[in-house]
Amino acid sequence: MLIVVDNQDRHGVLMEKKPKRRTRERIVETSLRLFNDFGEPNVTTTVVADEMNISPGNLYYHFHNKDEIIEEIFVVFEREIEETLAAPTRRLADVEDIWLFLHLLFEQIWKYRFFYRDLNDLLTRNRLLEIHFKQIMAHKVHTATILCEGLVSTGVMRATTQEVRALATNVAVLASYWLSFEYACDPRGKVESGRIGRGVYQVMAMFSPFLLDEAKGLLEKLSREYLKP
Amino acid sequence: MLIVVDNQDRHGVLMEKKPKRRTRERIVETSLRLFNDFGEPNVTTTVVADEMNISPGNLYYHFHNKDEIIEEIFVVFEREIEETLAAPTRRLADVEDIWLFLHLLFEQIWKYRFFYRDLNDLLTRNRLLEIHFKQIMAHKVHTATILCEGLVSTGVMRATTQEVRALATNVAVLASYWLSFEYACDPRGKVESGRIGRGVYQVMAMFSPFLLDEAKGLLEKLSREYLKP
Repeated sequence: MLIVVDNQDRHGVLMEKKPKRRTRERIVETSLRLFNDFGEPNVTTTVVADEMNISPGNLYYHFHNKDEIIEEIFVVFEREIEETLAAPTRRLADVEDIWLFLHLLFEQIWKYRFFYRDLNDLLTRNRLLEIHFKQIMAHKVHTATILCEGLVSTGVMRATTQEVRALATNVAVLASYWLSFEYACDPRGKVESGRIGRGVYQVMAMFSPFLLDEAKGLLEKLSREYLKP
Repeated sequence: MLIVVDNQDRHGVLMEKKPKRRTRERIVETSLRLFNDFGEPNVTTTVVADEMNISPGNLYYHFHNKDEIIEEIFVVFEREIEETLAAPTRRLADVEDIWLFLHLLFEQIWKYRFFYRDLNDLLTRNRLLEIHFKQIMAHKVHTATILCEGLVSTGVMRATTQEVRALATNVAVLASYWLSFEYACDPRGKVESGRIGRGVYQVMAMFSPFLLDEAKGLLEKLSREYLKP
């Protein structure tokens, strides 16, 4: 086992800090990639260290266990997805805004897909994730509701309050679990970000029957682009 | 460790077989209950044996590892859900048929909810589940398609082929992941089968905008019953 010596002293702070932070960052990046590719339950800290060609001891110097790495990734994920979810509430939305919003949302989920892959197990194991994911899910429903209300108020969409509520919840469910469904349907299929496009299309299909004339036409045009092989 | 002696002989077959099968059945029942309550990753065979007040050796006599128990549960689950999925294709459906079908489907999922809770991880670990779950998902989409086509052909619903395809897929996603979503939104909430009702309502809400006059009225009536606290 490699013994990691903390070289930091009053002269060395600037000189030494950089490479150390670099290792820490690389651990986080490598873990995220491996978690996404193979599923978090199948990746140990030893596997991460091995992939990076560093000793388990070196990794342990930065993170005492896998949960610390997961939480560090989660903090960044949460900040990014909360920003995405906050964006569309700033003005009344049109159909293209929704399309764009869904794209950004699916991209966030794709980038951190390991969280969604085994979500229930992670929530059971980790109190931080349990509390914060709950808020993220509620935020998703809230943002989808704001978007729908925007479309209704500009006359682009016709839906009752109850219909909007049900639709917004379904949007959150579908966005959160689309990749899991794709995976269950084809576990050995190529995992590529093209799956995002199909997800966006499926969510838009739920909006579609509530849209009026022009907006519906625009949606169908956008859909045709998406359904192209 | 308890040594289990196989008492079976040419005279004892009938006498001895019954209690042995009984233990096997109890292992399966207890495992299903514990997997559903605590999640399969959190339940070891030792926990199952302990819950039953039998020795790990006695359990091991019937099942060599947890995967053998999971597969035995899966075979029954698959038979039951395939029956449920086959039923509505026998005649043209109306709105109440869909409601009933969704109820049966959600009840199956509820009964075996641990499969859906950590589905991706189970699929990665078990080749049998990987292949068969893929078929179950495809069957769900197929049955939902048949139901929609039935509604369209009897003039109860108005939807294009493309809309039916998207809707049927969304029905399968929502039915499969509704409980996971409920759990993520409220991990410490009481886990009760009332969550099924909300799931059925959310799926019906996706059908709703495609339904015409009378059918839509019937759906709204059924929904009001469901939304009652």
